[in-house]
Amino acid sequence: MRDIETHGPVRPTEQALSALRPLPASAVRLARDGLLGGWQARNATATLPHCVEQLGAHGNLSNLSRVSGDAYAGMWFADSDVHKTLEAAFWEAGRSGDASAFAGEVAALLEKAQDPDGYLNSYYQDPEHRGKQWAELHYSHEMYTAGHLIQAAVAAVRSAPGDAAAEQVMSIARRFADLLVQRFGASDEVDGHPEVETALAELYRVTGHRPYLDLAARFIENRGRGVLGEGRFGAAYFQDHEPVRSAPEVAGHVVRQLYLLAGAVDVAVETGDRELLAAAERLCDSALDSRTYLTGGQGSRHRDEAFGDPYELPPDRAYAETCAAIGSFQLVWRLLLATGDVKYADEMERLLYNGIATGIAVDGTAFFYSNPLQLRTGHDGSHEDAPSQRLTWYSCACCPPNLARLMASLHTYVATGGPDGLQLHLYGGGTVSAGGHTVDVRTSYPWDEQITVTVAGPATGAWTLALRVPGWCTNVRLSINGSPAPARGQIVDGYLRLHRMWQPGDRIELLLAMPPRLVIAHPRVDASRGTAALVRGPVVYCLESADLPESGPLAGVPLEDLELDPGASLTIAYHSAGLSPVTVQAPMIARISEGGPLYRTRAAKRRAGPSGLVTTIPYFLWANRAAGPMRVWIPLAAREA
Amino acid sequence: MRDIETHGPVRPTEQALSALRPLPASAVRLARDGLLGGWQARNATATLPHCVEQLGAHGNLSNLSRVSGDAYAGMWFADSDVHKTLEAAFWEAGRSGDASAFAGEVAALLEKAQDPDGYLNSYYQDPEHRGKQWAELHYSHEMYTAGHLIQAAVAAVRSAPGDAAAEQVMSIARRFADLLVQRFGASDEVDGHPEVETALAELYRVTGHRPYLDLAARFIENRGRGVLGEGRFGAAYFQDHEPVRSAPEVAGHVVRQLYLLAGAVDVAVETGDRELLAAAERLCDSALDSRTYLTGGQGSRHRDEAFGDPYELPPDRAYAETCAAIGSFQLVWRLLLATGDVKYADEMERLLYNGIATGIAVDGTAFFYSNPLQLRTGHDGSHEDAPSQRLTWYSCACCPPNLARLMASLHTYVATGGPDGLQLHLYGGGTVSAGGHTVDVRTSYPWDEQITVTVAGPATGAWTLALRVPGWCTNVRLSINGSPAPARGQIVDGYLRLHRMWQPGDRIELLLAMPPRLVIAHPRVDASRGTAALVRGPVVYCLESADLPESGPLAGVPLEDLELDPGASLTIAYHSAGLSPVTVQAPMIARISEGGPLYRTRAAKRRAGPSGLVTTIPYFLWANRAAGPMRVWIPLAAREA
Repeated sequence: MRDIETHGPVRPTEQALSALRPLPASAVRLARDGLLGGWQARNATATLPHCVEQLGAHGNLSNLSRVSGDAYAGMWFADSDVHKTLEAAFWEAGRSGDASAFAGEVAALLEKAQDPDGYLNSYYQDPEHRGKQWAELHYSHEMYTAGHLIQAAVAAVRSAPGDAAAEQVMSIARRFADLLVQRFGASDEVDGHPEVETALAELYRVTGHRPYLDLAARFIENRGRGVLGEGRFGAAYFQDHEPVRSAPEVAGHVVRQLYLLAGAVDVAVETGDRELLAAAERLCDSALDSRTYLTGGQGSRHRDEAFGDPYELPPDRAYAETCAAIGSFQLVWRLLLATGDVKYADEMERLLYNGIATGIAVDGTAFFYSNPLQLRTGHDGSHEDAPSQRLTWYSCACCPPNLARLMASLHTYVATGGPDGLQLHLYGGGTVSAGGHTVDVRTSYPWDEQITVTVAGPATGAWTLALRVPGWCTNVRLSINGSPAPARGQIVDGYLRLHRMWQPGDRIELLLAMPPRLVIAHPRVDASRGTAALVRGPVVYCLESADLPESGPLAGVPLEDLELDPGASLTIAYHSAGLSPVTVQAPMIARISEGGPLYRTRAAKRRAGPSGLVTTIPYFLWANRAAGPMRVWIPLAAREA
Repeated sequence: MRDIETHGPVRPTEQALSALRPLPASAVRLARDGLLGGWQARNATATLPHCVEQLGAHGNLSNLSRVSGDAYAGMWFADSDVHKTLEAAFWEAGRSGDASAFAGEVAALLEKAQDPDGYLNSYYQDPEHRGKQWAELHYSHEMYTAGHLIQAAVAAVRSAPGDAAAEQVMSIARRFADLLVQRFGASDEVDGHPEVETALAELYRVTGHRPYLDLAARFIENRGRGVLGEGRFGAAYFQDHEPVRSAPEVAGHVVRQLYLLAGAVDVAVETGDRELLAAAERLCDSALDSRTYLTGGQGSRHRDEAFGDPYELPPDRAYAETCAAIGSFQLVWRLLLATGDVKYADEMERLLYNGIATGIAVDGTAFFYSNPLQLRTGHDGSHEDAPSQRLTWYSCACCPPNLARLMASLHTYVATGGPDGLQLHLYGGGTVSAGGHTVDVRTSYPWDEQITVTVAGPATGAWTLALRVPGWCTNVRLSINGSPAPARGQIVDGYLRLHRMWQPGDRIELLLAMPPRLVIAHPRVDASRGTAALVRGPVVYCLESADLPESGPLAGVPLEDLELDPGASLTIAYHSAGLSPVTVQAPMIARISEGGPLYRTRAAKRRAGPSGLVTTIPYFLWANRAAGPMRVWIPLAAREA
């Protein structure tokens, strides 16, 4: 192990392709009265204990502690939910400074469950399945599960170095990783679910042990050779349809594609492989260009959890799995570090406030697996596949602990930096330190437009403070120590770059104007034609049944019969209490449609219905009140039907 | 057996709820130079031999003839494909008057394969599965398969009475049906896939043996009690979520729901059960009102082959299984007979020329399983689930032989009647006889607007000739023996009812005007907002890549970038050769969209692109040329984006 305390999630080596330097976990503290810091606090007090409780209730923990004869419980990869919760616990232990009892207990369980050769998987250690170890890789998720164990260990030594449980889990993970190197180091095989690639590259980063990186690279290259067969959904489901280097665009199972690309970026960065990095960028961009929802969510098909065709983006049947949003966040973070391209930071922000945040209830203990952008009146929400409300757990519970580990490590994603300066990518109140520089950030972003950055600590000579100007922002105002300063001219490649001899107490005030705006989709997105979405700053808004007018001209109009008046203007309201600090009021017109024929010959103009203002709330806050219909894309009232 | 030669697919008994009387198979001959008769001829010379060949190639036949030790091939309900093809062969034998060698061979196979107690299912007779007979009804399709055997037998004695193979298959089917009565006559169980209900009711109709009807009724009542569990997709997948009588609307797996409702109508009609009939109508109407594609297709979800929510009708991900269209056709035919409501005849027509006809290639030997209304540029059509072109066969091959049996029996659905008159529901050239009356029909419908009906045979006193006036038709012209006659006043409940002392040679000329029209969807159908479809008569048209202009202002414009000019008029062209006798030319405007951002702030008006006329073809003829994108719903050019 080397240098672990000075590195964040990704630590490029000398020859690396790396534009930005991540920060160690200890470099950033998010204030708990901000939205991001508040999420971290909620994660610590609600989500993480909830996950631990659910792992107990659903047998995940007893799978590991069971004596011979006890029945195995849950999915065959249920260990991975333990590992992800363990990772979250380690991030949280490092953040709070308190050792995690759960981490200690699980570390002991894992140590006891591990086979002498390093193998650890309670499903395939069950006497009934032991004979199938490594024998059904298209299906087994064995390396996927191993990958999450390794990621827990990496988080442990990054976030809680010196912690006894952290050291213990790292030893367990290395024994398993050494077994993988021994078993697969010269093999053409791959796992049906990518994940171990990024885990092994990260393990290399914290240990310096090259065989881990070499195995990750081998697994990347082994893909696309058709070794896993077609299965029920075709080779793309397993990410085995085409080599990463030559694939023209994303395909197949979204989470598997994204996890694979995260591993590809890690390997490319560590080995200086520009071709592989370019392939990962090309694939990621192909998703962002034509297969991504307004919320950053990806995955248009329930059947095989797949991307779907270009521009196939149905709001109602959006799959947009929570894990896919997290996978995309991890991928674009890696691409941001590798390339410095602000578009990837913009994508992180979009995902965080929309596609990811919607996955979890305001109380932190209920979750969406799929994240539709529309729920219809009459929706049958009785199934896990497309419930009407968030559920406390799932039979396949990959998403809840994935949220827990992301939220617990959120502070590691907000900034990068080094001796030459700091780059702020995501705006949350708190402090950021790197390269000897420290700044204090105060903001109620994304509710408020104002961000105040104060230089703290001793003077450190000349350095550059880089503040991201989001792509959605067309009006930036800047003042330094109370004096207005020109902003536009100092924006280079999406960042306001302020270079000077910063003095303690210097105060930078940045205003990112957030007038609510109407956004429309590319004309090829058939499913959103004739509609617009309300967006303010980075936050997508939605119309939810709980906000339908109870009096006035629009009282009683069903959600489906409200249309946006495209000519009128949008207003916002601030709230000191309630579900959302900011709501957007939109002028809408009722259309009377119920009971009409399903199809009719196109004819005369329609008469206008009653109109009025309707409240919309942030999409990520929907489904926290009574269950009912919701929509992000709202029909634009037209001059004729 | 009683009266079998005088009855068509459904024969109500005296106490029956029945508005119309079906005709025996021998009562109608369709001329082969018309579209319907041509389909029957193609079915006889191409589709049926193709199905027989495929059954041989895929092991369906050897499953039945296998000696101990041979491996079972295909799906566990593969026998049903044999039974459906056998049914088609019997219909065809009756139509052509030639005995079917295939029917004789299969009858011998079945006789040999049947267990002494009557059980017959080559999967569950396999030594490996024999112990599971009747033990996994949620999954086994055992009664579904038995139902198709029974339907083959019913077709045999209806279409080819006296044929040795027909009598043999009827005996085999009755032995199995008797076993079902014995095994399930006092049981609460049901099959996970409805089908046997309608088969048993039909078997009662041709045998008069009441226990068959009682068992069908019992199976209807047993549903909705939750005896099959939740499975992967919930109880609605098995049609076990709610009793038929109380279910407010259709739900779950489309084919299962439709087959169940067909059985419910049969039972209701035979037992005089008005409540059950009303329930079937209510459920059917709930599908037609908000869950049916413009083509008559049903099923919006690939994942569980389900209806989906109200107004959830994505054109691109339309599942619209061919078997569902056939199931809907059989259901609305039964409701037409029971109620006489013309809307069900309209639905039969819509299904026939669109949702059903699109399932089969012009050469009769390739088939769609799912029938999307849009195929995008960039579609990954490599999987059976959503191929770019029709396939010659499927791993689950339910649809091809279903088409074969429907096409072979098509003549039994075009008319009803008795001594008081004839009712023509579907217009195809040929002859229709019933109640002593005979008419000769000449028409090139649906290409031509003109239908000529000539009274043939001896004078039979006063009777009523009823000619359906399709719901889409707003301009009807009539002449009798060359003299214009008032039409509108004689249209009662959707039929032009002409009562008189018809004389041999009397000639009725009916003109159903078919100007092409722009049809729009209900505003709640989000997936078709801002678009229109081209329809002429009963035929839905589509824009297919093979018809994109190769020269002129629109040359090179991708299909996705063409928009309908809503202000200009549509024209038609007749063709004596080529894929379609009639094409519709529509004025379209190009939009330049490729490469733009996926989402953008709504802003200024767009500049108009080049415009020109584009050819569209009947939807059911698409995918008979080079594979490429297609769409039914075409964006309407708007004044602003």
